[in-house]
Amino acid sequence: MSSSTTGKPIECTAAVAYEPNKPLTIEKIFVDPPKSHEVRVKVKYVALCHTDAYTLSGADPEGLFPCVLGHECAGIVESIGPNVTNVKVGDHVILLYTAECGECKLCKSGKTNLCNSVRATQGKGVMPDGTSRFHDKNGKTLYHFMGCSGFSEYTVVADVSLVAIDPQAPLDKVCLLGCGITTGFGAAIKTANVQKGDNVVIFGAGAVGLSVVQGAKLRKAGKIIVVDVNANKKNWATQFGSTDFINPNTDLKKGQTIVDKIVEMTDGGVDYSFDCTGNVKVMRDAFECCHKGWGKCVLIGVAASGQEFSTRPFHFIIGKVCTGCAFGGFHGRSEMGGLIKDYQEGKLKVDEFITHRRSFDEINTAFEDLHTGECLRTVLNYD
Amino acid sequence: MSSSTTGKPIECTAAVAYEPNKPLTIEKIFVDPPKSHEVRVKVKYVALCHTDAYTLSGADPEGLFPCVLGHECAGIVESIGPNVTNVKVGDHVILLYTAECGECKLCKSGKTNLCNSVRATQGKGVMPDGTSRFHDKNGKTLYHFMGCSGFSEYTVVADVSLVAIDPQAPLDKVCLLGCGITTGFGAAIKTANVQKGDNVVIFGAGAVGLSVVQGAKLRKAGKIIVVDVNANKKNWATQFGSTDFINPNTDLKKGQTIVDKIVEMTDGGVDYSFDCTGNVKVMRDAFECCHKGWGKCVLIGVAASGQEFSTRPFHFIIGKVCTGCAFGGFHGRSEMGGLIKDYQEGKLKVDEFITHRRSFDEINTAFEDLHTGECLRTVLNYD
Ligand SMILES: [Zn+2]
Ligand SMILES: [Zn+2]
Ligand SMILES: [Zn+2]
Ligand SMILES: [Zn+2]
Repeated sequence: MSSSTTGKPIECTAAVAYEPNKPLTIEKIFVDPPKSHEVRVKVKYVALCHTDAYTLSGADPEGLFPCVLGHECAGIVESIGPNVTNVKVGDHVILLYTAECGECKLCKSGKTNLCNSVRATQGKGVMPDGTSRFHDKNGKTLYHFMGCSGFSEYTVVADVSLVAIDPQAPLDKVCLLGCGITTGFGAAIKTANVQKGDNVVIFGAGAVGLSVVQGAKLRKAGKIIVVDVNANKKNWATQFGSTDFINPNTDLKKGQTIVDKIVEMTDGGVDYSFDCTGNVKVMRDAFECCHKGWGKCVLIGVAASGQEFSTRPFHFIIGKVCTGCAFGGFHGRSEMGGLIKDYQEGKLKVDEFITHRRSFDEINTAFEDLHTGECLRTVLNYD
Repeated sequence: MSSSTTGKPIECTAAVAYEPNKPLTIEKIFVDPPKSHEVRVKVKYVALCHTDAYTLSGADPEGLFPCVLGHECAGIVESIGPNVTNVKVGDHVILLYTAECGECKLCKSGKTNLCNSVRATQGKGVMPDGTSRFHDKNGKTLYHFMGCSGFSEYTVVADVSLVAIDPQAPLDKVCLLGCGITTGFGAAIKTANVQKGDNVVIFGAGAVGLSVVQGAKLRKAGKIIVVDVNANKKNWATQFGSTDFINPNTDLKKGQTIVDKIVEMTDGGVDYSFDCTGNVKVMRDAFECCHKGWGKCVLIGVAASGQEFSTRPFHFIIGKVCTGCAFGGFHGRSEMGGLIKDYQEGKLKVDEFITHRRSFDEINTAFEDLHTGECLRTVLNYD
């Protein structure tokens, strides 16, 4: 199958980040055809994630400008380059910022969902051959972002960076499986592997944190404690399955720390804790409130550049464990089908995270939504 | 069975730490008879460990004086208090600073070797009833230490803090199983659970580090890299099974860090790293040189008071794991028999750690031995 656009550059709408901490420029750009092992995708829906906002803010020293941000998205394959065998034109796909090649040391280890295949070039904002497929109307090269660049109506990704899904799955919803929901859910059911009766605490009740909650609830955890400084998050937390909510600004006794409070509520500490804030002080609390002997802290939130995690080594000596994960430990290509199925069978909440919908040209307003406490996810549509 | 001393205080030789950072005072002290669930032991052999030296130095803010130090020791049960069922008079025993009651939340969890039964009082230098069994000739109360106090010819311990062993096992050697050897060996084969072909690195080639080496060697690890700033440790490391030795002061290229070097030697990082130094900067190196996706760092060395472990949270996000253990994760009462058997069958080196033997009255000289690079363990005998 081929279309009139196959093999040619496509002119389409995109939101370009020309400079840090400035609104995105919505304009027509040119998207080159896919090369070997590359796929061009017509993006249908893209959601905003805090990582987009973080890079746009300029706080990420590895952020490259000008670039096309966006990494939580779904679309349809428009054309494929040579040697692409895993998807075909017309396939419904979710883009994967965590690639899966199946052949590198990491993929073959069976111990991690990280993959080395496109890591180096992805970090440099280019395709594996070292070049970009994006150009603006002045011919200026635009960088790719996280191997996805969903803020363009057409994008080009490596074949290892996308997965075909059941065409029955609603793209305007499952686009969210490209990042936050999957990350939180996997942190709970894969990285931590929460079991029935385990006590857990989740710091930060955004989309990731609430998806940890739903994973813990699915596993029939004991106490599912959510900690957030925004009291308005309590209703959401309850809806997704939490048993307790703590606002550290108002719910602590005099002289009591959040760690004290959680240790008291859980007879010595939690079995699993999750940081979904990226704040290194919160990470420390999350680690220290773990039960001695086995409590495990899973770091999910990405810290600002230069920030360090610190703790007394004693906590490790008494058997607490600290680790973390990216994309919830899920292998994007092998395991996305299972997630879609979980969603279709009602085991995985997705729709409930969509608090806002906007057309793509409202993307700058959508970034403002993200900074209010009222938004879990805004889904943008290109139509 | 009973003896003429049963039920009465015993006057015997001890080395008392009256003040931090002063030589121990060798003198006669009085050791009260054991109360309910307590056992009085005639200590036959005691070794010096860095934790004794650390507390004696005064650097430990929780150190209590005057006290009777010593925690790596073996002896014979002299008498038992009421309700003691796990040992009898005449049993050969090893004292356990990590108790095992079998009944507390921790013991019943099946997930840790830590035990809460005597933890609180042990930390306060007293027996579970809140009092001490030691008095000096002026009637002054002396604190217990780590639930053992092997620097007294007779000592009283909780029944959960000792284990009877095969009377055929040579006490002058297996006394070392009371701390360092067990700690390092267990860190490798239990906490890390090193498997065939795994690459490991051990920072610090003292008794603990070298016992990690022997555990890794037993498991047929791949590279077993030892890092120590004392080049003289290389021979020992090789003898215990290391494949590589790095002296960071002399073996790094210009601009190369120890982490760079280890990552280069192991194609991306080690599967397991072990800190046996207690230095928080070294802990950081040990953690950061782990392979992304699965590398696990096991902290064993005890840090000085107030020192903190720090790292970039990114290392956790990419799947590295940091944890630690006490007493190698071994359950002292349930598993000491297996360790003794391993020793008797030649699977566990013990004799090789004994570099010095001295009579008990040379204990202050033995502390000086500890600070030279020439000593792994000095065993003191009371006879
Ligand atoms: Zn994201
Ligand atoms: Zn791969
Ligand atoms: Zn010790
Ligand atoms: Zn216990």
